[in-house]
Amino acid sequence: MSQSNNDKATSENVVWHSGEVGRTEREAMLGQRAGTVWFTGLSGSGKSTIAVEVERRLATAGRLCYRLDGDNLRHGLNGDLGFTESDRTENIRRTGEVCRLLVDAGVIVLASFVSPFRADRESVRDMHVAAGMPFLEVYVEVPIEVAEQRDPKGLYRKARAGEIRGFTGIDQPYESPDRPELVLPTASSSVEASAESVVELLRVQGLIGSA
Amino acid sequence: MSQSNNDKATSENVVWHSGEVGRTEREAMLGQRAGTVWFTGLSGSGKSTIAVEVERRLATAGRLCYRLDGDNLRHGLNGDLGFTESDRTENIRRTGEVCRLLVDAGVIVLASFVSPFRADRESVRDMHVAAGMPFLEVYVEVPIEVAEQRDPKGLYRKARAGEIRGFTGIDQPYESPDRPELVLPTASSSVEASAESVVELLRVQGLIGSA
Repeated sequence: MSQSNNDKATSENVVWHSGEVGRTEREAMLGQRAGTVWFTGLSGSGKSTIAVEVERRLATAGRLCYRLDGDNLRHGLNGDLGFTESDRTENIRRTGEVCRLLVDAGVIVLASFVSPFRADRESVRDMHVAAGMPFLEVYVEVPIEVAEQRDPKGLYRKARAGEIRGFTGIDQPYESPDRPELVLPTASSSVEASAESVVELLRVQGLIGSA
Repeated sequence: MSQSNNDKATSENVVWHSGEVGRTEREAMLGQRAGTVWFTGLSGSGKSTIAVEVERRLATAGRLCYRLDGDNLRHGLNGDLGFTESDRTENIRRTGEVCRLLVDAGVIVLASFVSPFRADRESVRDMHVAAGMPFLEVYVEVPIEVAEQRDPKGLYRKARAGEIRGFTGIDQPYESPDRPELVLPTASSSVEASAESVVELLRVQGLIGSA
């Protein structure tokens, strides 16, 4: 198993099982290297739209990938969490663990989360690094004015009206990445061009072949 | 997406994303139907041993599967949980959600958890049924005396010595399944025979082909 053994008092009578079938064997079967592509950026930056386009391209090429996003995870695993700072942190922690399980299963994960706090993203990166798993941070960059004008879910309008508190970019900060693997400026690039840049990143990093 | 839309107050500003690539497409690519095999039974019943053997057989046949168990999940996603009744319930809830995500990704999940409470197992079953996903409950049945004699982790000894509280079978009940898809009596059957029964169940249920 490639997960780190993060012992806790609550887990002291737990024995770590080594699976006989490892990630490398699953990756060989699938013909790909698994890893997480983490899209971060403001609401309305285009994270999910780009992830959907990348997913389509990878699936067409016969690659196994899976898309996680804040919106659909919050209906299940993280349905008990709200949007306070600590709930956001727990949301990202659990999501990082799920990414790691999916990657361990051999899957290329496309995770799109606002994930406004640098420390949270770094902890997800560290989790992956500790397990020897690729983690590719993609900053989906857009001026807040453009995101607010797009407002695909009407959330900026609600936040300005005071109907939503703690909205990233309005009354909570967004901390941009220091050294992301890729920056996608979506005010000036098409979805198709952005998706192609991500696929190219996966090639360069050796997750998929050049075919 | 095949997950149900389980709205909560905390999630009211969350929009459900429909992925362009669905589970059916991933299953077709992998040549299998995804689903969860849920092994339940006392500590020492043989759940994980059998799951490892099933995993080996499926991998050798080119099937993508992934093993989850209480021991390794508790080092990551569920590392914040202990063994009180409510923590056990939350442990199983999160695990059920992870199963569902892995199944949605196209994977055959082999989940081995003591999961002593019938209601918890039924809620995981319901989650799967609501999402149109196979859920196969396998009762790994063993007399407590036999499990205690095996005591592979030395936990029964600790529980008898009062060093562990709330240990299933000693001072917490184990509620056996009413209508599991399969019963494996491990006091009288070999690991190999048990594993073969599970593989046969997967064939009968259409998750894997007969090859």
